[in-house]
Amino acid sequence: MKTVGPIKIKSPEIEGDISVPLATFETPLWPSTARGAKISRLTDGIYTVILSDCMTRSILLEAPSAQYATEVVNTMETHRNKLTEIVAKNSNYAHLENWHCQVLGNLLYIRVAITTGDASGHNMITQAADAVTTMLLQQYKKLKYISISGNYCTDKKVSAVNGILGRGKYVVAEILVPKQICEIHLKTTPTKLVDLHIKKNLLGTLLAGGVRTANAHFANILLAIYLATGQDAANIVEGSQGIVHAEIRGEDLYFSVTLPNIIVGTIGNGKQLDFAKENLNLLGCDKDLTPGKNARRLAVIVTAAVLCGEISLLAALCNPGELMRSHLDMER
Amino acid sequence: MKTVGPIKIKSPEIEGDISVPLATFETPLWPSTARGAKISRLTDGIYTVILSDCMTRSILLEAPSAQYATEVVNTMETHRNKLTEIVAKNSNYAHLENWHCQVLGNLLYIRVAITTGDASGHNMITQAADAVTTMLLQQYKKLKYISISGNYCTDKKVSAVNGILGRGKYVVAEILVPKQICEIHLKTTPTKLVDLHIKKNLLGTLLAGGVRTANAHFANILLAIYLATGQDAANIVEGSQGIVHAEIRGEDLYFSVTLPNIIVGTIGNGKQLDFAKENLNLLGCDKDLTPGKNARRLAVIVTAAVLCGEISLLAALCNPGELMRSHLDMER
Amino acid sequence: MKTVGPIKIKSPEIEGDISVPLATFETPLWPSTARGAKISRLTDGIYTVILSDCMTRSILLEAPSAQYATEVVNTMETHRNKLTEIVAKNSNYAHLENWHCQVLGNLLYIRVAITTGDASGHNMITQAADAVTTMLLQQYKKLKYISISGNYCTDKKVSAVNGILGRGKYVVAEILVPKQICEIHLKTTPTKLVDLHIKKNLLGTLLAGGVRTANAHFANILLAIYLATGQDAANIVEGSQGIVHAEIRGEDLYFSVTLPNIIVGTIGNGKQLDFAKENLNLLGCDKDLTPGKNARRLAVIVTAAVLCGEISLLAALCNPGELMRSHLDMER
Amino acid sequence: MKTVGPIKIKSPEIEGDISVPLATFETPLWPSTARGAKISRLTDGIYTVILSDCMTRSILLEAPSAQYATEVVNTMETHRNKLTEIVAKNSNYAHLENWHCQVLGNLLYIRVAITTGDASGHNMITQAADAVTTMLLQQYKKLKYISISGNYCTDKKVSAVNGILGRGKYVVAEILVPKQICEIHLKTTPTKLVDLHIKKNLLGTLLAGGVRTANAHFANILLAIYLATGQDAANIVEGSQGIVHAEIRGEDLYFSVTLPNIIVGTIGNGKQLDFAKENLNLLGCDKDLTPGKNARRLAVIVTAAVLCGEISLLAALCNPGELMRSHLDMER
Repeated sequence: MKTVGPIKIKSPEIEGDISVPLATFETPLWPSTARGAKISRLTDGIYTVILSDCMTRSILLEAPSAQYATEVVNTMETHRNKLTEIVAKNSNYAHLENWHCQVLGNLLYIRVAITTGDASGHNMITQAADAVTTMLLQQYKKLKYISISGNYCTDKKVSAVNGILGRGKYVVAEILVPKQICEIHLKTTPTKLVDLHIKKNLLGTLLAGGVRTANAHFANILLAIYLATGQDAANIVEGSQGIVHAEIRGEDLYFSVTLPNIIVGTIGNGKQLDFAKENLNLLGCDKDLTPGKNARRLAVIVTAAVLCGEISLLAALCNPGELMRSHLDMER
Repeated sequence: MKTVGPIKIKSPEIEGDISVPLATFETPLWPSTARGAKISRLTDGIYTVILSDCMTRSILLEAPSAQYATEVVNTMETHRNKLTEIVAKNSNYAHLENWHCQVLGNLLYIRVAITTGDASGHNMITQAADAVTTMLLQQYKKLKYISISGNYCTDKKVSAVNGILGRGKYVVAEILVPKQICEIHLKTTPTKLVDLHIKKNLLGTLLAGGVRTANAHFANILLAIYLATGQDAANIVEGSQGIVHAEIRGEDLYFSVTLPNIIVGTIGNGKQLDFAKENLNLLGCDKDLTPGKNARRLAVIVTAAVLCGEISLLAALCNPGELMRSHLDMER
Repeated sequence: MKTVGPIKIKSPEIEGDISVPLATFETPLWPSTARGAKISRLTDGIYTVILSDCMTRSILLEAPSAQYATEVVNTMETHRNKLTEIVAKNSNYAHLENWHCQVLGNLLYIRVAITTGDASGHNMITQAADAVTTMLLQQYKKLKYISISGNYCTDKKVSAVNGILGRGKYVVAEILVPKQICEIHLKTTPTKLVDLHIKKNLLGTLLAGGVRTANAHFANILLAIYLATGQDAANIVEGSQGIVHAEIRGEDLYFSVTLPNIIVGTIGNGKQLDFAKENLNLLGCDKDLTPGKNARRLAVIVTAAVLCGEISLLAALCNPGELMRSHLDMER
Repeated sequence: MKTVGPIKIKSPEIEGDISVPLATFETPLWPSTARGAKISRLTDGIYTVILSDCMTRSILLEAPSAQYATEVVNTMETHRNKLTEIVAKNSNYAHLENWHCQVLGNLLYIRVAITTGDASGHNMITQAADAVTTMLLQQYKKLKYISISGNYCTDKKVSAVNGILGRGKYVVAEILVPKQICEIHLKTTPTKLVDLHIKKNLLGTLLAGGVRTANAHFANILLAIYLATGQDAANIVEGSQGIVHAEIRGEDLYFSVTLPNIIVGTIGNGKQLDFAKENLNLLGCDKDLTPGKNARRLAVIVTAAVLCGEISLLAALCNPGELMRSHLDMER
C-alpha cells in the first residue's frame, strides 16, 4: 500500500488537498494516479458533485396473477407512511426514500431505496427489505414470498438499473486541464487524449458489448481504495460501470468521470480494522458528526482519485510503448 | 481470512478434497461456502471442466479507409507464422492462439489471444500486443497507431465479448444433489431452489439489464479467493459475469456454475507474497512443472468454490429471514 | 394479410373474442398464431393488464459544469406547474407525467414523459420536449441546447431504460393451459415447453448478450400487426424487447408475456389509410370516445396476439423437425 | 412509397448512382434521406465495403454432463467434411462456413454459420441446422435434442453475438464531406455534427443501456427499404444495432456507418411480389448471375441509404426546432 497525492479537490463536501491510500499489486497504479493528482494541483482542481445517495434491495414476491400484482403496485402508495415507519424502526439511519416496481408475468419485483447514513448499508437495506416484505405479505394476503433479494437490486453484479435508478452514490468529477499542462505533464495533447478516449472508451467498449460503462480502468482505482479503507471490494463490479466524458474546450482539455452507483461506507464491517481506521482518518472521513457526511466525503475522494488514475492511463496509452515500459520499470 | 472446506472436486485437472482460503469482511461467506463444501462431500462431488484458456488484448489501429482496414483483416492470415514467432520471442510461455477483428468505420480493432502458462498474463499479452502492433505497422504502411488497448480486450470491464470469444479460463462446475441431502443440509427442496434461481438469477437479472450474467453472488467468492491467493482482484468485474444453470433431475437437484472468463495465475505480481505462497501451496497450485497446469488447477478450485457459495446462498434465500439472521449472528 | 383467431381476451380494457389481422411474408405465422388463439378459446382465455402508459423523449442540454447541471436537476421541481402548462398547450391530449434526469460530466439528459391519448405520440412528445427545452433555456441561462433528442428517450433503438422507466404501454398477458389441452393442441407437455423456454429464451438469450429480452419471436407478431394497422413498424425494435415467464402450475402450463414498452396508436400517420382504418375497425379500436382507450385496447390485443404466436412457436420447437416442416409446407 | 436519390456509391460490388425506394409513414424520411443522397453526389460519394457474409442458427443440445459437452466441442472438428457435405445437400447455395460453441452447465449451444447465396437464408439455415443436429445426435449418442434454435443464433432479437461473430452481412459505409458542403447543404458545421453524434449517439445510448448500438435512426431507413423490397422487416431489430463513427478531418467531416449484421436477400419470400420485383429491378439487384452478388449489392445500397438518412437527421438535430418543423411541414 502506498499513499499518493495530494489531490486538489473542490466540492460541496470537501475543499482541500487530499492524499489517497492505494492498496494494489499493480504497482504502476501509484505513479499513474500520482501523476493525475499532480495535474489537479497544477490546475483549479477537481470539481466533484454528488447527485444522489441511497441503498437499494429488490424484494421478489409472487401474485396469483399479473392483475393482482398490478393492484399492489397501484395501491402501495397508500401505505407509504406505514412503510416509512417500519423501515425507520430498524435503524436510526435508515430512511425510506422510495420504491420502484416491475411486474413480470405474475411476479412482482419491488426495489426499495433507503438512506443509510455513513454505512454502505448492505445489512440495513436487507433489514428494511425484510420489514417491507413482512408488511406487504400482511397487507396483500395473496402475495407469496419468493426472495428477499430478486437481483433487480442489484448487488455486485452488472446491470443497467443501478445507473438509471441509482444505488449507492452518484458522483461526477471534472477538471479543466490547460493545453500546456497537458503537454508537459501528461506528455500528450488534449486533442490526442480526447481522440483516444472516444475510440477506446466509447467505441471500443461499445464493440465489446459493454453496458453503461465507458472507461479504461476505473476498477483498478476503486479496488485499491476499497482495499485500503475496509470496503467490501466486491462492489467494484457495479461501481466500475462508470463513464468518461472528455472534450476540447478552446485549446484545453475538459475531462470528467461519472460514477453513478458507487457503494462506500465509513462505518461497518472492515472499517474497524486498524489499517482501515488509519486510512479513513488520513482521508478525514471520521470527523463529521452528521450521519452520511463522512461517507459522502469518501465518495468524493474516491471519484477524484478515479479521475486521476483514468486521465493518466489514457495519456500513457497515447504514446506507443509507454504503458509497457512503465509496467516493466515498476514491476521487475 | 479463513480456510473452509474441504470441497470434493473431480476434474481432469484435479481429483480430491481441497480446502479453500477465503479473505472477506462478509463473514457469513465462510459458513455459507463451508455448507456448500459439505454438500460436495456428501455427494459424488463437484465435476469441473475447462473449455478454453487464453489471454487477450485488442490493439486499436486506424486505417485511411474502411476498405483498407478490410484488406488488413483479409490478409493478416498470410503473416500468421511471423506473428506467432514475434509473440513467442517475448516469453517462453506466450503462444499466439488466434486473433479476431472488428472494423468500425476506418478503425480496426484486433483482439489478439495468446496462452500464458501459469501467469494470468496481463503483462505478457501487452508485450505480445506491442509486438503485433509494431509488425502490423511495418507491414501495412498506412495504418496508424491509436492504442495498445482498444477496450475490445476487455480487461476489468463489463462486456459480452469475453464470454463469447473467451478471455482467461472458461470453466464449468456441476453437481448432482440428492433430494434428501438438499432437504437436510440446505434446508430447502430442489424444486424451491430451482424455482428461486429462475426467478432471481435469470428473470431478476434480466429485468436489471444485466449482460451475460445470472448469479446471486459469484463476485463475493471470487473476491475472497483472489485476495487470499494474490490475484489482481479487479478481474472480478468481468470474472463474475457467470451463469447458473440448475434443474430438477428426477427428484434431485442438478446445479451448475459456468464462468466463461475468469483470470487467475499462480505466478506473477502478488503471488510471491508470503500469504499468497502459503495459500497457493495449501491448494496444491505450486507443484506441477508443466506450464499452465497450476493455474488451471487454481481455476478449477475457484469455480468449485463459487458453486459452493452460490448453492448455499440460494438455499438460504428460499427461507424467509435466514439471510438476515445469518448476517446478524455472524457480524454482531 | 390474413386475419386469424379469434383470441379470447379478458382485461379491464376488453372482454371478448377478437380476430387479429397479420401482415407478413412469413406465412407459417398465420397457422401458428391461430393455434395459440385456439388455445385461448379452449381455456379461460388470455388475461391482460396494462401497468403504465406514456411517451418519452430525452432532451440533451449542456451546463457549464456538473455542479450547475445538478442544480438544474435539484430545482426543476419548482417549475412543475409551468412545465405542465406548456406541455398541455401543444395538444389537448398531451399531459406531462414526469421527468427523469441523468448527469454525465456537464451534460444533462432530461427524459420527459407525457400521456398522448390515442396517438402513439412521436410528434406530440417532440413538441412537448421542444417546449420544455425552450422554457429551461429561459430559466437556466447558462444551459446550452445540444439536441431535442439525446437517445436516452429512446426511440426505435435497443435500450434498458425503456423497460425500466417505461415508454409506450407496459402490458402483461397470461394464460393457464390445462395439461391435456397442451398435449392435444400444442402437441407437447407443459414440462417440455417450460423446459425449452428456460433453455432457449432465458439461457440462450443470456449467452447471446441480449438485454432485457427473452423470447422466441415477439418481433414477428408485432411486425405483422403493426403493418396491418398502420403503425410505425420501426418501433418493433424496442417493442420486441419483452420477456416470457412460464412455469408449471400443478400439472398445467402457466404462460405469460410481458411487453414493458410497446408503442401503438389508433390515430396519426398511417392510421388514416383504408386498410388500417378497416383493420382498426375490425379490432374495435375506433369506437371509444375517451382519449387513450382505443390505443389501450389495441395494446391489449397486440399483447394477447404475441402470446398466441409465442406459445405456438415454442411448442413447435419442442418437436424435432416441426418448425422446418411447417415452413416447407406453407411456403413452397 | 417514394424513390429518393440517386445516391453516389463506390464499392467493390457497385459503382454508380442509385435511387432508393423508401416505404414509410414517416414522410420526413424522404426529404431527409434525399438530402443525404445529395451530399453524396456533391462529394466523392459513399465508399462501402462488405467484411463478411453468412447466416447462422444455434442448435441447442443437452449432454449428460459438462464434460461430455466439452468432448463434443473438442471433437466436432473431426467431422468437418461430413458436416460440410450434409449442409450442402440441402441446397446448391448452402455452404458450411464455420461453427461456434458455448457450453452452459451441461447444455451445448452450437451456432452454425453458412453462406446462402442471394437468399436471406432463414429457411436454408434452419434446414442446415436440422441436418447438423441429426448428424450430431447420431455421432454423439448421449446428446439429446432440445431445440433447433437456441436463441444464440440470434434471429430478430437484440444481442451482442451477432455483431461479434457476424450474422447476415457486415457492411461499412463512409463519406468525406467538405466543410463548405456541410455548411451549405446540411446547414451545420462538421464540428457541431460530430459533437452532437458523440453526445447523443455514443453517450446518450450508453446511458440508455443500449448494447452494440449507437445511432439516431438506422431502424427507420432499414424498415423503409425492407418494406419496399420484400424483406422480412422483423430483421430490423438486430439489423439496426449499428454504429456511427464520425470525426473531423482537417476541417471536413468524416462520417461512417457500420452495420455488422444486416439480413437482406433478393430471392425468397416476399421478393416475388410485383412491387418488390420492380424495386429490386430498379436497384439493379436482379441482374447478376453469380449467387450472392445481387444480395451483396442490395446490402451495399441499404447501408449507403442508412448513411444518407443518418447524416441528415443528425444535421437537422443540430438546429433547434428543425426536426419539429420538418415533421409539421410534411405531415400536416
